[in-house]
Amino acid sequence: MALIVQKFGGTSVANLERIRNVAKRVARTREQGNEVVVVVSAMAGETDRLLALAKEVSPRPSQREVDVLLATGEQVTSSLLAMALQDMGFPAVSLLGHQVRIFTDSNYSTARIQSIDGSRLERELKEGKIVVVAGFQGIDQEGNITTLGRGGSDLTAVAIAAALGADLCEIYTDVEGVFTTDPNICPEARKIPKISYEEMLEMASLGAKVLQTRSVEFAMKYNVPIHVRSSFSEEDGTMVVAEDQSMERVVVTGVTYKTDEGKITIKKVPDTPGVAARIFGPLAEANIVVDMIVQNVSEDGFTDLTFTVPKGDMTRAVEIVEKVGKELGAKGVAWDPDIAKVSIVGVGMRTHSGVASKMFAALASEGINIQMISTSEIKISCVIEAKYKELAVRVLHKAFGLGEEAVQEA
Amino acid sequence: MALIVQKFGGTSVANLERIRNVAKRVARTREQGNEVVVVVSAMAGETDRLLALAKEVSPRPSQREVDVLLATGEQVTSSLLAMALQDMGFPAVSLLGHQVRIFTDSNYSTARIQSIDGSRLERELKEGKIVVVAGFQGIDQEGNITTLGRGGSDLTAVAIAAALGADLCEIYTDVEGVFTTDPNICPEARKIPKISYEEMLEMASLGAKVLQTRSVEFAMKYNVPIHVRSSFSEEDGTMVVAEDQSMERVVVTGVTYKTDEGKITIKKVPDTPGVAARIFGPLAEANIVVDMIVQNVSEDGFTDLTFTVPKGDMTRAVEIVEKVGKELGAKGVAWDPDIAKVSIVGVGMRTHSGVASKMFAALASEGINIQMISTSEIKISCVIEAKYKELAVRVLHKAFGLGEEAVQEA
Repeated sequence: MALIVQKFGGTSVANLERIRNVAKRVARTREQGNEVVVVVSAMAGETDRLLALAKEVSPRPSQREVDVLLATGEQVTSSLLAMALQDMGFPAVSLLGHQVRIFTDSNYSTARIQSIDGSRLERELKEGKIVVVAGFQGIDQEGNITTLGRGGSDLTAVAIAAALGADLCEIYTDVEGVFTTDPNICPEARKIPKISYEEMLEMASLGAKVLQTRSVEFAMKYNVPIHVRSSFSEEDGTMVVAEDQSMERVVVTGVTYKTDEGKITIKKVPDTPGVAARIFGPLAEANIVVDMIVQNVSEDGFTDLTFTVPKGDMTRAVEIVEKVGKELGAKGVAWDPDIAKVSIVGVGMRTHSGVASKMFAALASEGINIQMISTSEIKISCVIEAKYKELAVRVLHKAFGLGEEAVQEA
Repeated sequence: MALIVQKFGGTSVANLERIRNVAKRVARTREQGNEVVVVVSAMAGETDRLLALAKEVSPRPSQREVDVLLATGEQVTSSLLAMALQDMGFPAVSLLGHQVRIFTDSNYSTARIQSIDGSRLERELKEGKIVVVAGFQGIDQEGNITTLGRGGSDLTAVAIAAALGADLCEIYTDVEGVFTTDPNICPEARKIPKISYEEMLEMASLGAKVLQTRSVEFAMKYNVPIHVRSSFSEEDGTMVVAEDQSMERVVVTGVTYKTDEGKITIKKVPDTPGVAARIFGPLAEANIVVDMIVQNVSEDGFTDLTFTVPKGDMTRAVEIVEKVGKELGAKGVAWDPDIAKVSIVGVGMRTHSGVASKMFAALASEGINIQMISTSEIKISCVIEAKYKELAVRVLHKAFGLGEEAVQEA
C-alpha cells in the first residue's frame, strides 16, 4: 500500500463527464490498495470567467478580493469530484485550503506556501476516505484566502505530498509527459521516461510548459517523486526524480525555446566599476526581471552591454536605460524584440566536454548566427534571430541524438 | 453614527449592474456616517445552477459536499461587491463564514447557528472598512462548511446584527415590505409600517413569504430591530420590532393564507385515552409534520379526528392512518387536498373580544363554510374550501378595516 497524491488540471475536469472519468481513475488507484489524496484545479474556463467578472466590476480589482473570487473555482471542482466518488461507492471528502490549513504569506495572487498542517488530511485518510483537495489556494496567518499563482495546483499537490511523506505525486495533464522538445516543432521529439529535478527545473524555466518551476523546486527540496502523465491515456509519462547514476549516460536531455524576451544593447559605456550597478539598479527598482547579460571585451575603456528582458517590459526598460545611458555618456541604446532563446539541458554536461562547441557547430551548419550565449552547469542557452527558432530546435534535437534514443530506450 | 447591517437577496445582486447599485446604496449609508456590515446572497439563479451540477453528478449527493458547492455562490457575490465598493473609493473587505467564525451545528443544509465570534468583524470596522459577509454559510466545530437552509442569508444578517449589537438590520428584498395581505389577491392591501416580532412570526409561519420564521425568532430573542424594504426603491418598508403600546390600537394586523396542506379525517374512532397517541405517534415517526388537529365531541363513545399535513406527505400519511384506523376499528379514512387555511394575525386580539365571531361572520356573509378552526393568543386560522381562498382573504381584509387604516396612518 502506498500513499499517492494525484493532481488533475483544468482540462482534465473541464466538464461533468471528465470529472466522472477522473473519479474512475482515482477509484482504480484506491482499489489497488493505495491511500489517495486528489488535488484539483478549477474547471477549464472557470478562472477566466471569474476574472472577467472581476474586471467588469473594477478595472483594477484588489488582489485580495480576486483571490476570494478565484478560490471558488477549485472549491466547486473539489465538491463535485467528492460527490462523483461517493456516487461510485467510495467514501470521499473535499477539503479547502483553510481546512487543510495550507498557510501562505499574504502576497495575494502569488502567495508562497509556508507550512501545511497535515493532521486533518491524515485523520480523513485514516478513516479510509479519499480526500479531494481544492488546489491553488491557501490562507495567510489571519485566515485571508490567498492563491498561489500560475501552476498553483501543481504546487499544492507537491506540497501536500511533501507534508504527508507521500510515495508519489502524479500530475495528470493534457500531454503525455515531458518531451525532448516541443513535438509541434520537431516530430522526432520523444517522451522522456525519467528526468532529474535539476534538468526539469532548467527545462521549465527555459520554456518547457509541462510543470512550473516552483513545483519542481518544492519537489526537489523535499525529494517528492513526480510522475507527469496524461489524464486521457493509461500510458506511463515522465518520472521527475532525484539524479541517479543511470541518467549520466545521456549528455543532453532536452531542447527548449522561449520567445517571450527581447534584447536591449547599451553601446559604448565606460568600462569602469559601478557602471553595471547604475544600469541594472533602476531596472530592478522598476521590477523588471533581467535574464541574460553579456558584456563585450573592453575597447579603449568602453564596452557594449547587452541583456534580455520580458517583452512586456521592453518599452519601460528602454526608457530607463536611455536615461541612464545619457548620464553615463553612452553612445546609444538599441533594442530588438525579434529574438528567440534556444537551450539544451542535461546533467550529463557536467561530465562531458565539447557539448557547447557541438551546439555552436550545429547552429552554424544551418547558418544561424548566435547573438548571445549563457551557460550553467547543466544548460547552454543561445539567443538567435526569432525566425530561426524552429530550425534551431530541430537541428539541435538531431545533433544530440534525442530522437534516436527513443528507439534505444523503448 | 450607527452600526447598520444590510442584507441583499439574490434578485438584488442578480447581475453586475445590480451589484453596482447595491454598492451605491451601501456607500450612501456609509457616507451618512454609519458603520456598515453587508450580508449578501448568491446571485439569483446561481444556487439552482450549482444544485443542477450536483444532481447531474449524483442523484443523491452528500449534503456535506452540496454545502461546500453552494457556499461558493455567496463567496462570489461577496468578493464582487467588495471590489465594486473599492472601485468607488470605499475601503471594503469580504469575509466568509469561516473568517467571521460563524459556528453552527453539523446539520448540513439546515445548520443552526451556535455562536458568532465578532472580533474579526469589529477589527475590520474599526479600521474604517465596509465588511461584506457571504451569507447563508457557517462552519461546524471541525471547520466543515455548513449552510443554513432557506432564508439563510437573512439569518446571517440578523445573527451578525445581534453579535455586534447593531442598531438596525436592514433586509433588502424585491418587495416593499410586509403587507396586510397578498396584494396580488387584494388590491387594497397596504404596507404595514411597523409590526411586532410575534405578529411577524405568526404571519411568516401562516403564509407571508417576506421573512423566514427562523430569522424573526432570532431577532426577537436578541431584540434586533429589522427593517424590511425594497432594494429597488428609496421608500421606507416595514419595521419589525418588539411590541409596544402604540401597536395595541390595531386589533388585526394582517391576513394570510396557505394552500400547501391537505386534510385527513379518521371517522368514528373510540373516544378513549391513548387513541390520539396511537394515531399521531406513527406520523411523527415518519417525519410527517401535523399542523392543525380538531376532534369532534364524542357521540356514543366514538369521535371523528381531523388534521392537516403538508400536501407532499398526504399519500404517506393516509397509508399510515388507514393502517392505524383498521387496528382501532375506525369506520374509515377520508382525505381532501383541496383546502386553504386563511388566518388573521394581531397582538390586539389579546385585549379585544369578539374578534373570532367577527371573522366567522365575515366568512359566513359570503357563504364560505368553515371546516376547521385553530386559535392562539394572537391569531385565528380557518380551513376552508380552496376555491374560496381569494374571496375569503378579501372579505377578511375588509371586515377588519385593513385597507382603511392605511389612510389613517399615512
